[in-house]
Amino acid sequence: MLDQKIPLVTIYRLASYSGYLSDLEANHIKHISSREIAVGVGSTPAKVRKDLSYFGDFGKRGVGYVVSELNIAIKRILGINRTWKTILIGAGNLGSALTSYAGFKNRGYEISAIFDSNPKKVGTVVNHCPVLPIDELDTYIKDNEIELAIITVPADAAQEVAHRLSATGIKGILNFAPIKLELPEHIVVRTLELTRELEVISFIVNHGMQVDEHA
Amino acid sequence: MLDQKIPLVTIYRLASYSGYLSDLEANHIKHISSREIAVGVGSTPAKVRKDLSYFGDFGKRGVGYVVSELNIAIKRILGINRTWKTILIGAGNLGSALTSYAGFKNRGYEISAIFDSNPKKVGTVVNHCPVLPIDELDTYIKDNEIELAIITVPADAAQEVAHRLSATGIKGILNFAPIKLELPEHIVVRTLELTRELEVISFIVNHGMQVDEHA
Repeated sequence: MLDQKIPLVTIYRLASYSGYLSDLEANHIKHISSREIAVGVGSTPAKVRKDLSYFGDFGKRGVGYVVSELNIAIKRILGINRTWKTILIGAGNLGSALTSYAGFKNRGYEISAIFDSNPKKVGTVVNHCPVLPIDELDTYIKDNEIELAIITVPADAAQEVAHRLSATGIKGILNFAPIKLELPEHIVVRTLELTRELEVISFIVNHGMQVDEHA
Repeated sequence: MLDQKIPLVTIYRLASYSGYLSDLEANHIKHISSREIAVGVGSTPAKVRKDLSYFGDFGKRGVGYVVSELNIAIKRILGINRTWKTILIGAGNLGSALTSYAGFKNRGYEISAIFDSNPKKVGTVVNHCPVLPIDELDTYIKDNEIELAIITVPADAAQEVAHRLSATGIKGILNFAPIKLELPEHIVVRTLELTRELEVISFIVNHGMQVDEHA
């Protein structure tokens, strides 16, 4: 157990570092400095060192990091050194798009089924994922030891889905519906606002300035 | 022109404040304190005041803010007090999902057309958006004074699309492809990593702790 809360931006950056280190590994690069990582992901060497320092002592002064070792360490910190059994609720366009999003599988999130309340969709298969009736949600989660759920239903159906999920053993929910979900505290919920980065873009265009990603 | 770089997290929070203030307006609530805003969006009163202080002097000590005035001010700061003419490139599932995402239109981002290189998709209509051939991109952007583009093509096609866009008058690009795009500096680019929030969830589940959203 860590003895202090970790800044959200540190988690975001660790994920970036890991993605960058994976690229380096694919290119057979063995060693890297904090300065090079910073350049690679658009951060600063001090931030890289600070972000890692929350979790231990990595690398050697003057030598830097072994790429593969650092990547394994970061993946362990993020909890993505293993597979996360994941389901998706909502077999619409967004849900369908996410089942084929390579990034999820690359990072260990394996979507095995989609749930939907529409009888016309139930029984179909979307990108190798069977579409199952929402009534089977609880049993499926138990039987298959599912840990994470992704909600892609419309906003007016999302709270009802969240309520159903709260009665299962689900540990975390990624919510794409643009509403704040009410859930028991033991379930980790994050809402991904699709407009958020557009608002950053219009701010930057509007003011003719960049934002400080690392403040 | 602002005389200092604004932290990215401040922009994210301003967008949250505005969303919350819009909800209050819909519920005919006229006045609010920084403490109430903080509770509403899960921030702290000090952060709310600090975020606003970059842009001027809002509200009155002991009285708080007039909801509608503060919301207008924040929308002006974010540049969303007007419509942004937007197009989408890639008529796949993700692109189709985004054309029907209510959040975009609510925040002023109006998607008027989708571009695709697949002749089978060109000529169809997705959620009232015509699917046009990619060869017409440049002309369409000029003729319709399009400012923003959203890229939802697969990763291996995204850089080619970005290259085409860089030859137009486009001002900003929201990229959903999981790659870093090379673009001229005058174009504002943000990549939305769909895995990012899942990695936050697995971190929190893994460590049994919350992250500090406001560090």
